Amino acid sequence: MKPVKVGLLGLGTVGTGVVRILQGFQEDLSSQVGSPIEISRVAVKNSEKTRSIDIAREVLTTDPWEVIRDPEVDVIVEVMGGVGITKDYILEALERGKHIVTANKDLMALHGTEILAKAQEKQCDVFYEASVAGGIPIIRTLIEGFSSDRIVKIMGIVNGTTNYILTKMSQEGASYDDVLQEAQALGYAEADPTSDVEGLDAARKMAILGTLGFRTNVELTDVSVSGISGVTRQDIQFAKRLGYEIKLLGIAECHNEEFSISVQPTLIRASHPLASVSGVFNAVYVFGEAVGETMFYGAGAGEMPTATSVVADLVAVIKNLKLGVNGLKQIVPYKQKKLKSDEQVFYKNFLLLHVDDKAGVLARITQVFAEYEVSLDSVLQQANPANPDAEIIIVTHNASKASMDKVLRRFEEMDVIRRVKSHYRVEG
Amino acid sequence: MKPVKVGLLGLGTVGTGVVRILQGFQEDLSSQVGSPIEISRVAVKNSEKTRSIDIAREVLTTDPWEVIRDPEVDVIVEVMGGVGITKDYILEALERGKHIVTANKDLMALHGTEILAKAQEKQCDVFYEASVAGGIPIIRTLIEGFSSDRIVKIMGIVNGTTNYILTKMSQEGASYDDVLQEAQALGYAEADPTSDVEGLDAARKMAILGTLGFRTNVELTDVSVSGISGVTRQDIQFAKRLGYEIKLLGIAECHNEEFSISVQPTLIRASHPLASVSGVFNAVYVFGEAVGETMFYGAGAGEMPTATSVVADLVAVIKNLKLGVNGLKQIVPYKQKKLKSDEQVFYKNFLLLHVDDKAGVLARITQVFAEYEVSLDSVLQQANPANPDAEIIIVTHNASKASMDKVLRRFEEMDVIRRVKSHYRVEG
Repeated sequence: MKPVKVGLLGLGTVGTGVVRILQGFQEDLSSQVGSPIEISRVAVKNSEKTRSIDIAREVLTTDPWEVIRDPEVDVIVEVMGGVGITKDYILEALERGKHIVTANKDLMALHGTEILAKAQEKQCDVFYEASVAGGIPIIRTLIEGFSSDRIVKIMGIVNGTTNYILTKMSQEGASYDDVLQEAQALGYAEADPTSDVEGLDAARKMAILGTLGFRTNVELTDVSVSGISGVTRQDIQFAKRLGYEIKLLGIAECHNEEFSISVQPTLIRASHPLASVSGVFNAVYVFGEAVGETMFYGAGAGEMPTATSVVADLVAVIKNLKLGVNGLKQIVPYKQKKLKSDEQVFYKNFLLLHVDDKAGVLARITQVFAEYEVSLDSVLQQANPANPDAEIIIVTHNASKASMDKVLRRFEEMDVIRRVKSHYRVEG
Repeated sequence: MKPVKVGLLGLGTVGTGVVRILQGFQEDLSSQVGSPIEISRVAVKNSEKTRSIDIAREVLTTDPWEVIRDPEVDVIVEVMGGVGITKDYILEALERGKHIVTANKDLMALHGTEILAKAQEKQCDVFYEASVAGGIPIIRTLIEGFSSDRIVKIMGIVNGTTNYILTKMSQEGASYDDVLQEAQALGYAEADPTSDVEGLDAARKMAILGTLGFRTNVELTDVSVSGISGVTRQDIQFAKRLGYEIKLLGIAECHNEEFSISVQPTLIRASHPLASVSGVFNAVYVFGEAVGETMFYGAGAGEMPTATSVVADLVAVIKNLKLGVNGLKQIVPYKQKKLKSDEQVFYKNFLLLHVDDKAGVLARITQVFAEYEVSLDSVLQQANPANPDAEIIIVTHNASKASMDKVLRRFEEMDVIRRVKSHYRVEG
């Protein structure tokens, strides 16, 4: 049987895993798709580099265009990353009728619409399971498993670096800076950790999940983002005392076809399935109108887990190839896009305030909440020996983001409030 | 656009959910498949019954053959249950070129091979996502999500009734009999609970998961089964003291293409993701050679969750119908079947022994373990004021099932051992 020829763009961590699976599991794979799968061309940065896998020198090239223009190549597997020239590679490959498997969340979050439109025009497949939550098949689950349902809420721990940091801070009482350094030393965080710790990576993944879950065109600019660099040990301790863990959660909600989407450090109740997802693991919690609560858990990154998703997509492309149906099952968002305004987004809030330690302060603060009709779930005032100010911890009931913003602006103007030390969303 | 016509066999809990979704989400569904979906014929037991859904009286019939023989019907959705006549209905429907969506685990576990062979012959789809773990899309995940991996281990909490009973016993210290009665009153357990509590229901689901995970023909008779009716409050307390919960786990393992499969009450370490799956929820833990640890969690039964899976399968059938590829993506087990012998199955064991309270007993017991080369992880001897005997709790290291059987047979012959009170597998 004629082999299917795969062109690989990139031979870093994930690319190496892809080669390892294609070599190691070849018999299983060809039994499923009905023909051998051959890596016929690989674009690398450095063709001289010593590698942990056995790959013939003559298939390597330092010019990605060679892979894309190779008429023999049926499918392009893009695991090089980047959004500039990489997008050009992908569009040109589609132009030439090649199918695409990519692990590139940045590309799909920023240019997914354009790429999928080109794919549809050319009747090509574009699959990207590995772009979100590594080895967890969450994209298939949203497209196929829940095709029958209306997704109401998606909450995701979709960034392993931040989950590792927050887990360590919670379990060991370590400081953010210390754990970040440790994560960098272990290779769990990059030298410049901004994209992870400021929530940008998670935002890209949430835009992809939101688009699939709500079947509308959720864009990266729709995601309101804040990161974990301000989270302190003290915040985590207060959260625990109230029965919560702090996680960087992507939260996408949709009611009456209007959606909201955000990424932020969030207090999640300890009994919620997401609260016990620890270390570099990822999990996506999906609440469907019919199916109710579900959760999907697994490794969010790493050579072999991510490669599992890439190769599963490759198997799907090849099965479609054999049936002659590539590009015909494309999921195009079909709903009109309606992003909720801040007046329409409601959630509970956790606030830690540093205030003047004198009579009447609490009364003035609660008065502000009352003015904007934000009702309170719990209020705790305490002296802190390490702090000349008093500390007030407040958990609100559901309040609109707009009302909370007004409350916070008023707080800024109040002399008795020294500082809004922390402000987090609360879930579960 | 011409509607796709669906014939429904059964209008009980799941059937009602299917109608509810098809009616309530019609616009979403037809946007995805490109045409309306119409329930054109429904076989019911009693056509006079008052129902909570709005369904035209003239589509109802008490004769399932009318649905199957209706030339207008494209797809049969079987949610009536049973394995005798139901199998004949399905085979006849396939003979007539109709595609099948079924929620029937008994049918698939017992006659799946025959039904899938007929489907292949007739180029028809047979989908059965709802047969295992209700709303969790675990069958798709094994077939598609992990097509690229070799599954090493599947552990499933796939029976909600027994998980509800064990959760209540663990959380409230209640007795098995009391919780079973409560579960029956709540409708979580049937009047005759045998199939659930003795593990037979779970065994059927595990046979289906094993077949898909290991790509070989796992049969129901391959599953060694024991149920939870012997689990006591004391067992659960001892387990907790050692850091475990007791769950009814289906466990399927595969190494070097040789597999073992079983269902039994199992001590699972409290930190394992399965340990916190409580109440009627289901979860399937899948460990793949490449992907590592994953877990899929959700409602295992109930009208709407199960109907979600049924309708997702229906969407898949209709998409295939539009593309003309029904029956062409059938997954046929392609590996030679090799079931492990008892000598090849290894796990840890928990034992609670009632023994004569006199000197030298422990030495004699540990001597028996040594004789069969079963090494021990921990041993705890204690007096129980309520019991004239002494209690010995033993946790072994990994030992073959064959060796453990020999140890247990020797214990039966020993005068000093009054009773092997409990014997459970240990995981995690």
